Amino acid sequence: MTGDKSFEEVEKAFQNFVEADPTYSAQVTVHVRGDRVIDLVSGALAADSLVPVFSTSKGATAIVVAMLLQQGRLDLDAAVARYWPEFAANGKESITVRQLLSHQAGLPGVDGGFTIEESWEHDALAERLAAQRPYWRPGAACMYHALTIGTLADELVRRIDGRSVGVFFADEVARRRGIDAWLGLPASEDARVVDFLLPTAEELAAGPLPPSSPDPIVATSLPVGDPFALITRVNEEGSRRAGQPASGMLASARGLAAMYASLRHVVNGEPPVLDDATMAAMSQIQFAGLELGTDLPIRFGVLFQAPCPPRWPFGGVGAFGHDGAGGSLAFFDPGVDVAFGYTVQRLALPGGMDARAVELARLVRGAVTAR
Amino acid sequence: MTGDKSFEEVEKAFQNFVEADPTYSAQVTVHVRGDRVIDLVSGALAADSLVPVFSTSKGATAIVVAMLLQQGRLDLDAAVARYWPEFAANGKESITVRQLLSHQAGLPGVDGGFTIEESWEHDALAERLAAQRPYWRPGAACMYHALTIGTLADELVRRIDGRSVGVFFADEVARRRGIDAWLGLPASEDARVVDFLLPTAEELAAGPLPPSSPDPIVATSLPVGDPFALITRVNEEGSRRAGQPASGMLASARGLAAMYASLRHVVNGEPPVLDDATMAAMSQIQFAGLELGTDLPIRFGVLFQAPCPPRWPFGGVGAFGHDGAGGSLAFFDPGVDVAFGYTVQRLALPGGMDARAVELARLVRGAVTAR
Amino acid sequence: MTGDKSFEEVEKAFQNFVEADPTYSAQVTVHVRGDRVIDLVSGALAADSLVPVFSTSKGATAIVVAMLLQQGRLDLDAAVARYWPEFAANGKESITVRQLLSHQAGLPGVDGGFTIEESWEHDALAERLAAQRPYWRPGAACMYHALTIGTLADELVRRIDGRSVGVFFADEVARRRGIDAWLGLPASEDARVVDFLLPTAEELAAGPLPPSSPDPIVATSLPVGDPFALITRVNEEGSRRAGQPASGMLASARGLAAMYASLRHVVNGEPPVLDDATMAAMSQIQFAGLELGTDLPIRFGVLFQAPCPPRWPFGGVGAFGHDGAGGSLAFFDPGVDVAFGYTVQRLALPGGMDARAVELARLVRGAVTAR
Repeated sequence: MTGDKSFEEVEKAFQNFVEADPTYSAQVTVHVRGDRVIDLVSGALAADSLVPVFSTSKGATAIVVAMLLQQGRLDLDAAVARYWPEFAANGKESITVRQLLSHQAGLPGVDGGFTIEESWEHDALAERLAAQRPYWRPGAACMYHALTIGTLADELVRRIDGRSVGVFFADEVARRRGIDAWLGLPASEDARVVDFLLPTAEELAAGPLPPSSPDPIVATSLPVGDPFALITRVNEEGSRRAGQPASGMLASARGLAAMYASLRHVVNGEPPVLDDATMAAMSQIQFAGLELGTDLPIRFGVLFQAPCPPRWPFGGVGAFGHDGAGGSLAFFDPGVDVAFGYTVQRLALPGGMDARAVELARLVRGAVTAR
Repeated sequence: MTGDKSFEEVEKAFQNFVEADPTYSAQVTVHVRGDRVIDLVSGALAADSLVPVFSTSKGATAIVVAMLLQQGRLDLDAAVARYWPEFAANGKESITVRQLLSHQAGLPGVDGGFTIEESWEHDALAERLAAQRPYWRPGAACMYHALTIGTLADELVRRIDGRSVGVFFADEVARRRGIDAWLGLPASEDARVVDFLLPTAEELAAGPLPPSSPDPIVATSLPVGDPFALITRVNEEGSRRAGQPASGMLASARGLAAMYASLRHVVNGEPPVLDDATMAAMSQIQFAGLELGTDLPIRFGVLFQAPCPPRWPFGGVGAFGHDGAGGSLAFFDPGVDVAFGYTVQRLALPGGMDARAVELARLVRGAVTAR
Repeated sequence: MTGDKSFEEVEKAFQNFVEADPTYSAQVTVHVRGDRVIDLVSGALAADSLVPVFSTSKGATAIVVAMLLQQGRLDLDAAVARYWPEFAANGKESITVRQLLSHQAGLPGVDGGFTIEESWEHDALAERLAAQRPYWRPGAACMYHALTIGTLADELVRRIDGRSVGVFFADEVARRRGIDAWLGLPASEDARVVDFLLPTAEELAAGPLPPSSPDPIVATSLPVGDPFALITRVNEEGSRRAGQPASGMLASARGLAAMYASLRHVVNGEPPVLDDATMAAMSQIQFAGLELGTDLPIRFGVLFQAPCPPRWPFGGVGAFGHDGAGGSLAFFDPGVDVAFGYTVQRLALPGGMDARAVELARLVRGAVTAR
C-alpha cells in the first residue's frame, strides 16, 4: 500500500521520527477514500500489535452512539432521563443527551471520589453518577469528563440497547469487519498486547505528568487518591478486560484507521456504518470555548473532539475523532475522506495527541488536497 | 461647522495624521445632538467621494432590521423559520432571529464553500444557507459571519417586507433624507466612487493581510479559493451594484454620520428613524466572550458591534455601530448623542477600525463630556 | 483554642505577617468541624472589633437566600417576576432567580447611573432596576454586579418574606446565635467599629486602586461620578446603618467564621442553619468563564463565589464564600468542614481577597487534610 508517490513525504517524516529517537515505537495507518495508503510501524511494535489507546477509545464509543442516533433510537435533544429514569435526580431532570455527551453536564466525578476499579466495574459508578448533583449548572461550562463520560455513555447505551458499548461495538462494528479495536479484550488476544511505557526519569524531570492541576474541580475527574491511575494501571488485566468506554480500548493503528474508514466505506463486505448526515450531526461543535479548570480552548462535538488549532489541529471543518493521553490519535476527515489511525507505545509528553501524529496528519492532508 | 473651539483637538489630530502620512486619504464627519460639528477630508478624497466601507455596511442593514422591529413586523425572539420556512432544515428549526443576527447561528458558510459572486447574487446562497446544518450548535459559540450575515439578514427582510435590505434602506432611510450611503449603487453615482487601495508592498512585508487564520472554521466564512476576494474585488462594478448587505456599501463619512444621526434626529425634514427603546434593544449585548476561531474578545448587539475595549473601544455603554475591514468606522453613541462617520481609502493595517478613527472618536467623546 | 499543634503553622504564618508589616491589623478565626481552632488578631484590632468587610457581606445575603430556598419559599428556576411582578419590564420577564443571583442578568447598574446613597436607601434603586433593560441578553454574560446584586437580592427577599435581608439575617441567623456580623449596625455597637484605612500614598503610587477599568460596561456597576465611593465612604454612618446587602456589613473574623460554622453546626444552642443539599445547591457553579469587562476567569455559585484558582483559590470542590474589596475573606468548605473568617483594616492591594488570607486558608486546609 505504501510507496504511492503522493505520500512519500509522510513516510519520510515517519522515518525521521525513527532516526531522531531509536526507541520510537509507533504505528500509523491512513485510508484515503477508503483505500489504505499508509501503513507504517516502528520500534517494538508490529503491525498487529495492540496498544492501549486511552481516550482514543471515546471515538469507538461515539460511533456506537452515532449508530443509535442514525437508527432513530436516540434523540440528542431528549432528556437523558427519558432513557435512564434514575438519572433524573438532584437537578438533572432536564439535562439533554447532547449536553451529557459533550462534557457539559457537570458530572466529571462523584462526591467522595471514585476509584479506577469502579470505572472498570461500571454498575456502582453509574448508579452514583445518577444520584450526583452536577458540580456546575448543566450547560454552564464544559470540562473534560476523562473517565465518567464513558460510564455515562455506557449506561445510556445499555438502557437503550441492552448491550454495553463494548459489546455493541464488537458486534455491530468491529468483529464483522475484522477491525482490530477492542473495548474489552478477550484473553485470546492478550499475546498481541504491548505494555504501555511510562516516561523515563529523564523525561519526567523535564516536566510533570499530565494532568497535574491545582484546581480542585479538575481533581474530581480523576481517580481519588491516585490521579494517574488511568495511565499507570493501563497494563493491568482488569483494564484490558473492562474496556472502559472512555479509556480502555486496545487497538492497532490499522484497527483505528479501519474503524474510521468503515464509517463511509465498505470494509470486509460490510456496508458503511454511518451516513453523512449522522456524521455531520455528531461532528457539529457542541461546545467551543475555554475549558473549566484549565482555561484552555477546546471544541467538542457529540463525544468526538472537533479540530481546535493550535491545540487539536487534526483536520478540516467537519473532521471528528479523538486523541488519547498516551499520544494516540484517530479521526475521520469527511471533506478529504481521510481516516487516520496512530498509536504510540510510550507516553508522548506532555500527553494528548503526539506532536508527531499531528505532523503526519498535516502531511497527509497536504498530500490529499494537492492531488 | 468646524471651528467650534470644543473640537479643535479633533481637527488638530486629523491634521497630524495628514502630516504623518501625506497619502492619508480619509473623511470624518461627526454630529453632536444632531448638529454636524466636524466635517474633514484629506488626500484624494472630496467630501462627496464615495468609498467602499466593507462591513460598516452592516450598520445600514441593522438599521433596516431595527425599523422592522420597531414597526412590530419582526420579533427578535421568534424562530427565523417563522418568517423563512425553508430555514427550518437540518437542525435550524428553533434558531431565533436574535441568534441569527448576532453571529451565533453557526452559518458562517456552506458546505463546499461559496464564491464572492454568490454573495453578490444572493438567491442561490440564501437557499444553500437555508439547507445548511449549522457548524456549531446554535447559541454555543459566536464567530463573525463576515459575508453570510448579510445574506441571512437580507433574506429575512425580503420575506417580511418584500424588498431587499438595499432597496428598503434606500426607500425608507437614505434617499428621502439625502443620506449619501448606498447598498447597491446606481451607475449614475459611479463618478464619485474612489477605488479602494490595497496596502503597498512595504506594508504587506511588515504584516499579513487579515484575515489569514490557520483555523479551518474561520475559512468557512470567506470566499472559497480566494479568501481575500471580499477586499481585493471591492472595486468591481459587480460589488457596487450588488450592495451586499454585509460588505457592499459605498458611502461618504457625511453619509455615515447622517445615517446614524437620523436615528434620533430630524434630517432633511424627515422624522427620526428609531425610538430610544428600539436602539436599546438593538444595542443590547447578545454575545460577549471569545470569538470562535480567533479567541479574541468580541461583543455583538443585534447586528451592531457593541464597544469592546481594547479591541473595539468606540463608545460608551449603549453605543452601537460597525467597522469595516478597510478601516472605516461609524456608530451612534446615545449617551452623548454623537453620530460618527469615518472612511479611509487605503486598507488600514491590520484591518478593522483604523486606529486613527478610534483616536478621533476618543477625542470627540472627550470634547462632548467636557462641556 | 489556639495552640493545637496542627495549626502551629497557621499561627506562625500570621506572626510572620505581623513581623513583616508592623501596621498589619487583621483578625482570623477558623472553625474545624464546628470547633474554633484558630482565633488571632493583630495591630489595631481587638478580637471584638468590627471591620467593614465590603463584599464579604454577600455571603450573609447568600445565607438568607439559602434559608428561603431550604424553606421552599424560593425556587431558583422560577422567574424573578413571580416574586417581584414589576421586574417583568423591558425584556426581563423570564430572567430566573438563578441568573439574577449569579451576576448574569445584565443589571450591574441603571441608565444615568446611581449614587452610593441610592444603594443605601434601597427603594428607589430597586424600582429603577425593575424598570431597566438589561445591558446584555440575560444569561449571555456574567459581570460582577458589585452593588446592585445586593439591592436585587434584598428586594427579592422583601417580596417573599416582608423583612429586608439585613433584618432577616439579624433575626434568623446572627442575633440568636451571638454571631458578630451586622447588615445594618445599631448605634449601640458603634464603639467597636474601627475605621477602614485606605492605602498610603506610597502604596497608591505603586499601583492603582481597583477597580479602574477603561471599559464603560464596568463603569455601570460603580457609583456614578465617584466610582470609589464604595470604598472611600465606607466609614460613614450612613453606610453602617444601611448595611447594604452587597457591601455594607460590619463584622469581626469571629463573626464571619461563626456565621459559616453555623450553617452545619449548633451555635449557641441554635440548630444548624442549612442542610447539606441546600449548601450543594447554593455552591453549584452557575457561571464559569471570563468576566465581561475584565476578561478574568470567575466562577459564581448562587451569590457565593466558588473556588477559582489562581484568582480565588480558597477551598476545595463544593466550598463557597465571598471576599471583599478591602481584603476580607470568609467561606465554608464542607469537604473538610472548615469555616474561615478573616478581616483586615487597611485595603490589601490590589483589592479583593488579601493574599495573606489565601495563604492562611491554604495552611488550614493542609493541616486539616494531613490529620
